[in-house]
Amino acid sequence: MRVGIPAESRPAERRVAGLPETVTTLIGAGLAVDVQAGAGAHAHAPDAAYRAAGANTTPDHPAGRTEVVISVQPPTPAEAARLREGDITISFLQPNLERELVEVLRDRGVTSFSLDLLPRVTRAQAADALSSQALVAGYRAVVEAVHRLPKFLPMFTTAAGTVPPAKVLVLGAGVAGLQAIATARRLGAVVEAYDVRAAAKEEVRSLGAKFVELDLETQDGVYAQAQSETFLERQRELIAERVAASDVVITTAAVPGRTAPVLVTADMLKAMAPGSVVVDLAAESGGNVTASVAGEDTWVGDVLVHGARNMPSSMPAHASKLYARNVANLLLMMTSDGEVRPDLDDEVLGGCCLTHAGELRRELP
Amino acid sequence: MRVGIPAESRPAERRVAGLPETVTTLIGAGLAVDVQAGAGAHAHAPDAAYRAAGANTTPDHPAGRTEVVISVQPPTPAEAARLREGDITISFLQPNLERELVEVLRDRGVTSFSLDLLPRVTRAQAADALSSQALVAGYRAVVEAVHRLPKFLPMFTTAAGTVPPAKVLVLGAGVAGLQAIATARRLGAVVEAYDVRAAAKEEVRSLGAKFVELDLETQDGVYAQAQSETFLERQRELIAERVAASDVVITTAAVPGRTAPVLVTADMLKAMAPGSVVVDLAAESGGNVTASVAGEDTWVGDVLVHGARNMPSSMPAHASKLYARNVANLLLMMTSDGEVRPDLDDEVLGGCCLTHAGELRRELP
Repeated sequence: MRVGIPAESRPAERRVAGLPETVTTLIGAGLAVDVQAGAGAHAHAPDAAYRAAGANTTPDHPAGRTEVVISVQPPTPAEAARLREGDITISFLQPNLERELVEVLRDRGVTSFSLDLLPRVTRAQAADALSSQALVAGYRAVVEAVHRLPKFLPMFTTAAGTVPPAKVLVLGAGVAGLQAIATARRLGAVVEAYDVRAAAKEEVRSLGAKFVELDLETQDGVYAQAQSETFLERQRELIAERVAASDVVITTAAVPGRTAPVLVTADMLKAMAPGSVVVDLAAESGGNVTASVAGEDTWVGDVLVHGARNMPSSMPAHASKLYARNVANLLLMMTSDGEVRPDLDDEVLGGCCLTHAGELRRELP
Repeated sequence: MRVGIPAESRPAERRVAGLPETVTTLIGAGLAVDVQAGAGAHAHAPDAAYRAAGANTTPDHPAGRTEVVISVQPPTPAEAARLREGDITISFLQPNLERELVEVLRDRGVTSFSLDLLPRVTRAQAADALSSQALVAGYRAVVEAVHRLPKFLPMFTTAAGTVPPAKVLVLGAGVAGLQAIATARRLGAVVEAYDVRAAAKEEVRSLGAKFVELDLETQDGVYAQAQSETFLERQRELIAERVAASDVVITTAAVPGRTAPVLVTADMLKAMAPGSVVVDLAAESGGNVTASVAGEDTWVGDVLVHGARNMPSSMPAHASKLYARNVANLLLMMTSDGEVRPDLDDEVLGGCCLTHAGELRRELP
């Protein structure tokens, strides 16, 4: 069977779902691979390198020409309309944002898998693209902040005296948050972090950062009354106090497909020192920072707020490398003897399958 | 006596020669301070903060109104024409680039000091602005490279496999080069460095980087035949080989007031992996990289070359903090009882004095 890798057509997407190294892997599993010309351009993988790995390069999008299409962004409805019954797609597909596409995929009898829906089980880790891309986003968040900061991150001692290290606050200690903490620590910043899951404390501390806590009861590592007014009020006070004391704030509280919680208000920003920088990784899903706009820099008084937009795309070579391996691993889980035949009774494959044989396998919210 | 701090008027200069903390220092030494409105804007030091430190803020450039004018860039010839006999200026002044200005300063009987000419002696270290700004430039060179690199700097191990650390080559191991090495090492890169002074080896190694050496004889820590054709040929071969193996190259071989040596040719760039990044800190003085243009990004094939332009200005808060302390320290060396009276027989003060009492104290090249 034949796997197609298109050049991503959605705006500002610079990643690619396969690289020469994963083409080699797929061919090793008995598959053939078509790569659309220029697919790896931003990731610095030229067509010749794909051909050297054994792929066929084609001028057009592979939809309708290969049995399997793997991509980063989901196909457009027009691309999906070229897929044939029984064809397979794998991509980041957020069903609640793509209702028209989901209907096309269902009606055409396409078997579609979304990496957004991958079950968080051990067997699926090698295919966990949400985590791998969050890792890129967390690293890049610090790079973007440092690039905008008019100060050093590390402490410096010179003949003319000392410059203190920058203070970095990370809100949310998931994969992106932990990577942001690690990167800021590497650069010598003094880092503290907050998460509603008090259980994140040990991971945060193991990276050399301080965990800021609410003095409230927890149950199974979660604040017992996480949605109560008392909790939210205490959380606001704590965050306001820590934001005011920081040179850099990185917010990472995003849940794919849901609106992000507002954690940092304009009033909190006004209490920061002039020249401070805030990077909002949740800007595309509503934002953890009231002022943030995805893809833009916004000044709130003397504080610069960067709203992230597809952060992994700003580092296309390595973001693609990790993503391509994730997709190849998922594809290999459904491949034997050169045939891609997903067993939808499998916990992982069934868990991330969105449409199959004319059926929608999930309720849309 | 009164010290004036202007808002810098030269293009793209975002630093300022004094900050509220150094205003306090100068007032403590019995001086009065005038600050031009908006002088600290880019460094995020508002006029109110200068006033709170005891300065007077004025709408105009202080030339002709204060006995001393301290600045980052030298005054323009027009500003200098307002200075009075016996007035004092301190700035970065490269006499061979500013012949008209030097004549104005001489003819008006101004006593001008250039931090470019500061003797490299222990007593002058606290005023060593070339070093403090080179420190900023070295740090920022890595920040600019990392921001443009489509890859991680650190190694990552994920469930989908490992991403190797980036390889960084630093050419020139002076203050800027050593800081670039340290910053790239902090971020987890594998770093190697080269310097014509083989004696730089120990410093480079102490930062965790590899020192790449020519297999040639040295004398007092310098390659014995540093200008011979054999030496230059061997150096070209060595650099070409190490450039080809690197993801990032940072070149720092600049000598103020002189044309920088070309170390990296277009042919060498073509041997780098696609997506590699080169930052040329010497771009303003001709460039260590043939393709570099100061202030611009240039693609040479698939390699991105960033020509630095006033790198310290891209981090105005801390660059100004260090510079302001350097200038204040130099000023204090010539101040007693609230009077600025430089003793030009002093090794440090005499060494960096360019014009005095109608005389040019140095031969221009």
